[in-house]
Amino acid sequence: MERVVIIGLGLIGGSLGLDLVGQGHSVVGIARREETAQAAVAMGAVTEAATDLGLVAGADMVFICTPIDAVVATAAAIVPHLSPEAVITDVASVKGELVPAIEALWPHFVGGHPMAGKAEAGLAVAEAGLFQGRPYVLTPTEATNPAALERVRAIAASLGANLCQCSPPQHDRAVAWISHLPVMVSSSLILACQEEADPAILALAQTLASSGFQDTSRVGGGVPELGTLMARHNRAALLEALTQYQQQLEQMKMLISAEDWDAVHNTLTQAQAARPAYLI
Amino acid sequence: MERVVIIGLGLIGGSLGLDLVGQGHSVVGIARREETAQAAVAMGAVTEAATDLGLVAGADMVFICTPIDAVVATAAAIVPHLSPEAVITDVASVKGELVPAIEALWPHFVGGHPMAGKAEAGLAVAEAGLFQGRPYVLTPTEATNPAALERVRAIAASLGANLCQCSPPQHDRAVAWISHLPVMVSSSLILACQEEADPAILALAQTLASSGFQDTSRVGGGVPELGTLMARHNRAALLEALTQYQQQLEQMKMLISAEDWDAVHNTLTQAQAARPAYLI
Repeated sequence: MERVVIIGLGLIGGSLGLDLVGQGHSVVGIARREETAQAAVAMGAVTEAATDLGLVAGADMVFICTPIDAVVATAAAIVPHLSPEAVITDVASVKGELVPAIEALWPHFVGGHPMAGKAEAGLAVAEAGLFQGRPYVLTPTEATNPAALERVRAIAASLGANLCQCSPPQHDRAVAWISHLPVMVSSSLILACQEEADPAILALAQTLASSGFQDTSRVGGGVPELGTLMARHNRAALLEALTQYQQQLEQMKMLISAEDWDAVHNTLTQAQAARPAYLI
Repeated sequence: MERVVIIGLGLIGGSLGLDLVGQGHSVVGIARREETAQAAVAMGAVTEAATDLGLVAGADMVFICTPIDAVVATAAAIVPHLSPEAVITDVASVKGELVPAIEALWPHFVGGHPMAGKAEAGLAVAEAGLFQGRPYVLTPTEATNPAALERVRAIAASLGANLCQCSPPQHDRAVAWISHLPVMVSSSLILACQEEADPAILALAQTLASSGFQDTSRVGGGVPELGTLMARHNRAALLEALTQYQQQLEQMKMLISAEDWDAVHNTLTQAQAARPAYLI
């Protein structure tokens, strides 16, 4: 059994704790707020919790589960307290910026990204088994210590997750396509509709919108903080994906404008044929 | 009780028949294929059925429920057989082209569009109560006979639908926003991802895609025939909506490119705030 420390007790940190406590690990939780620390102990997500980062002393493995923009600063803050063999891993949804920054701070770091979101965030919606059957990406580099990688692999596998491995830039390009681009595509759909100048038509559109519109607009109507963080920390890959998307959309518009219905049909047929590969 | 004829026994025609037979109307179904006619009788969607358009003789009300591109030709074909007071209505998802064309053929026509789609099409998935609580748009014009409008209104209301009324161009602009634009936005998302040049990253993206991508891509991966018909028959309104959408997307890209994170956050906040008005 490992001595695990989880920093950041939200949906991911809390769910991780529930699984690891269930496996018999000693799990220390560190939260920013005392109330969160107490709630995590009360729900059995950790065996012990506090707000002091110094609690990482003696840990075998530290999971940094803070919001993206606090990950590197958190790593820098805990490094002075760590035992020499302690492994740090994180769960942030972007890796290209973070991984080299933390590797420069600590020799035993392995970037990770469990793909297990929920519509809501926070410790209150944490649940055991959240990672079961979901992808868990590890992003080792040439600098990654093989023993540290193996330890993070083992603990991620113990959650029942499907392990994937790739470089940090590959990870960021992949999630730009399937996670960050959809947020921009979907929010722009909502905002374009809002530009309708005739209030009667806007009201009618809102009345007539059904499941198709609701599905297409769902991720665009999500938490603004999350979408902003994604864009900020995966800016280059997202901009490339957006440019490619704009070309695709312009191509579709040209075909409709030219009344080339065979080509429109072919294009929609390609989309229909391609989609199943993205489904679980 | 009216003598109703339904031409085209698919999801909408069949579901309409089930409700109207249930209310005690005499319902004659006309299908292109004899097997469909027999199946409709067997499932109780019509009281009588055949493949001969001449059966409209003696009808009080004719519902044209064929695919969009057959509606006007069907109206032209039945007109010689109709009693002078017979009312024609249709269920096509575009109205701007069709309504004036049919008005020119028959004095008692009322355009209609019940918003009650399903993922699958065809008589086999028809069901009683399909229109219950769903919007049903009627699109009268200055040329519409008030008595004919009242009769279509009454029968649509009897299905438990929520009646809306607007002009044909207003209808087409509204559905361009919430039904036709989402198909193009969503299919372009799938096709943009497919343009990823590195096969390893494409495979990773497909593995990592979860509910967010699945929802955003759903209508884009739908039946190509339907998307093509929508684009073809609502071309002008769809092109306008696409142009507005492109501006919105370009604006978002500029903000990300300029690293104006406050503005990105504000934009996503507006999208989040606007979306609930489109939900049922």
